[in-house]
Amino acid sequence: MAVIVQKFGGTSVGGIDRIRHAATRVKQAVDRGDQVAVVVSAMGGETNRLVDLVRTMAPVHDAREYDAVVSSGEQVTAGLMAIALQQLGIDARSWTGWQIPVHTDDVYGAARIQRIETDVLKERLANGQVAVVTGFQGIGEVGRVTTLGRGGSDLSAVALAAALGAERCDIFTDVEGVFTCDPRIVAKASKLDKITYEEMLEMASQGAKVLHTRSVATAMNHHVRLQVLSTFTDTPGTLVVDEDEIVEQQVVSGIAYSRDDAKITIIGLPDRPGVAASLFGPLADANINVDMIVQNISEDGDRTDLTFTVAKADLDRTLDLLEKDNDKLGAERFSPDANVVKVSVIGVGMRSHAGVARTMFDALAGRGINIQLISTSEIKISVLISEDYLELALRALHTAYGLDVD
Amino acid sequence: MAVIVQKFGGTSVGGIDRIRHAATRVKQAVDRGDQVAVVVSAMGGETNRLVDLVRTMAPVHDAREYDAVVSSGEQVTAGLMAIALQQLGIDARSWTGWQIPVHTDDVYGAARIQRIETDVLKERLANGQVAVVTGFQGIGEVGRVTTLGRGGSDLSAVALAAALGAERCDIFTDVEGVFTCDPRIVAKASKLDKITYEEMLEMASQGAKVLHTRSVATAMNHHVRLQVLSTFTDTPGTLVVDEDEIVEQQVVSGIAYSRDDAKITIIGLPDRPGVAASLFGPLADANINVDMIVQNISEDGDRTDLTFTVAKADLDRTLDLLEKDNDKLGAERFSPDANVVKVSVIGVGMRSHAGVARTMFDALAGRGINIQLISTSEIKISVLISEDYLELALRALHTAYGLDVD
Repeated sequence: MAVIVQKFGGTSVGGIDRIRHAATRVKQAVDRGDQVAVVVSAMGGETNRLVDLVRTMAPVHDAREYDAVVSSGEQVTAGLMAIALQQLGIDARSWTGWQIPVHTDDVYGAARIQRIETDVLKERLANGQVAVVTGFQGIGEVGRVTTLGRGGSDLSAVALAAALGAERCDIFTDVEGVFTCDPRIVAKASKLDKITYEEMLEMASQGAKVLHTRSVATAMNHHVRLQVLSTFTDTPGTLVVDEDEIVEQQVVSGIAYSRDDAKITIIGLPDRPGVAASLFGPLADANINVDMIVQNISEDGDRTDLTFTVAKADLDRTLDLLEKDNDKLGAERFSPDANVVKVSVIGVGMRSHAGVARTMFDALAGRGINIQLISTSEIKISVLISEDYLELALRALHTAYGLDVD
Repeated sequence: MAVIVQKFGGTSVGGIDRIRHAATRVKQAVDRGDQVAVVVSAMGGETNRLVDLVRTMAPVHDAREYDAVVSSGEQVTAGLMAIALQQLGIDARSWTGWQIPVHTDDVYGAARIQRIETDVLKERLANGQVAVVTGFQGIGEVGRVTTLGRGGSDLSAVALAAALGAERCDIFTDVEGVFTCDPRIVAKASKLDKITYEEMLEMASQGAKVLHTRSVATAMNHHVRLQVLSTFTDTPGTLVVDEDEIVEQQVVSGIAYSRDDAKITIIGLPDRPGVAASLFGPLADANINVDMIVQNISEDGDRTDLTFTVAKADLDRTLDLLEKDNDKLGAERFSPDANVVKVSVIGVGMRSHAGVARTMFDALAGRGINIQLISTSEIKISVLISEDYLELALRALHTAYGLDVD
């Protein structure tokens, strides 16, 4: 009998009726003869409510107490899900992170899972009991509750699947799977049957919201077969798997985009050794992440222009820091632009195919879309363009790489 | 330095501002040099919300999962209270029942505390840290969360005070203490400075809502000095203490009442040995509690009338059972009356004073109030009267026993 982990997100457990419906998806697996561990998020909106309570009490607060408060949401769902399963005649019980236990480090609010004890759990599963486990949380080294941060429940599910040696980890969500592109923008986008971990990792880090990079990276490292699928429709989702499981690989598997970036151009920066370090050092110290960077060739060997991107949320803070440091930098001026988007084409097939970048540049040039910045990795090409051209660019690229379906 | 336990109920922690205010009451004790353990209830209304979720999922449900869900409310308050205390510059941390641990039996939903481990807690308190403890819950023998049932947070506080050898357990609530009678009905009622455990126990079991009998009984057994006081006013409350701490004892300390009883009269019951057993046996089996009982003297030696009271909530069920058993009972008919109240005068001084009952009967007769049933204990006289006369009876008795203040 196969062990399966099923994870239900906040929308899938957003109320009594939804939890009841999710329970029917668990029953399907039980009826197939699988041993099932279920991982649940807090009911939709509940974590935000708890975070608001903490922040209203004190904008700056003890992360340990934040975790104590915020971790309560998943407990409620786990208990309710266990009851819903019992209503369907299924033997079930709820487990918190500390009961399993899911051991983590002591970085409250962003803890890392170190070890999951599975002896008791495996015995219960083998006896036909469904384990309903609180996502997003564990127990730290000094016996306090920790939470795992953004995307934590997915991570709980993947780590549990790895620890149990599960055949598959199903991530139930409100979309039907991973699409070649956002179907709200590109009508001809289609659901992928399979995608590799590396591609999914790039999709996630380049703006696709369906999975967090931490969960995908953990799945990749432990060879956990992930399935992203909809709680609400009864169709297969997208499998995220090792590359050798995919027989016929497309050159480009998907196109991602992100509206979360902003661009800063530094004009008239003295072109001398060490200027980049004195520029980016203070940003790194302030925890500001710089993504794409392009330095123009210096025309007179004296001054140059330099362009880079940061998260839109960090734009003001970055400009403040730059202005403050400009005594040392000696730049002429800083030119910010928040009206940009990053578009990325992703596919492991790029490794063995030439001309992928050329197709991208041609397609964009053909629509009169100016490329402001470019960055590449082995399986990805990203360009920064004006936000106004986002939809046009996505559709043009989707067609150019032969991804359209009717 | 004295150890003090402070317990705040749902109204006292019903929102961010109220928790902040309650934290200032903790600070007062810390500033006096006390070592303080704080026990908190769930935010007002929160436990009801959680209970509703469980009941909506399944009217009949696994008590273990009920406890898993419902115990989350106090965790939220404990974390928020710890943050509020930290905001006031006080070193504080939250503790759940399983972290302390508070060991209980495995009777989910109505667990009994068996043992509280206090070594770590005492060390923290001695180092000046305030411990904020979730009320209402513990950990059972198999490592699951248990809840203590009605009045559970008071019980947590009293048991913690006993385990810590605390000098006092302060129960902060929305009233200023224990009154001679309900001040909403008797304007001349006054707050008692002190009351004995036994009197408080009778007050609680005869309808006074300020404390639950379980908490008072536990305090009495462990000689925990209890104080009932208001979170919102800065005046001393009522101390619940051993009898020898009270120098000048009133004959009657207080007058309690309950609207929760209903009366059933069985007319024409065959007057033969064993009839009471065949009457009350099935009620006991059905978990129906019978309080007052009076059997009339049989006039012809053949048939008699018998009157008793049950909780109003059990009235219909009791009548159903009696009708079903009437083959064996052979009564002529059953006459129910829900329009009754029980009024009780309570005082340890009764032990050494005659004429207490007489004063009661005279006062009621003087207002034309008919007494339907009477029951007495060493320190209490209860009468059942028509509900219509409740307010009149309370005021008459309050005056008759010399309790009125202007």
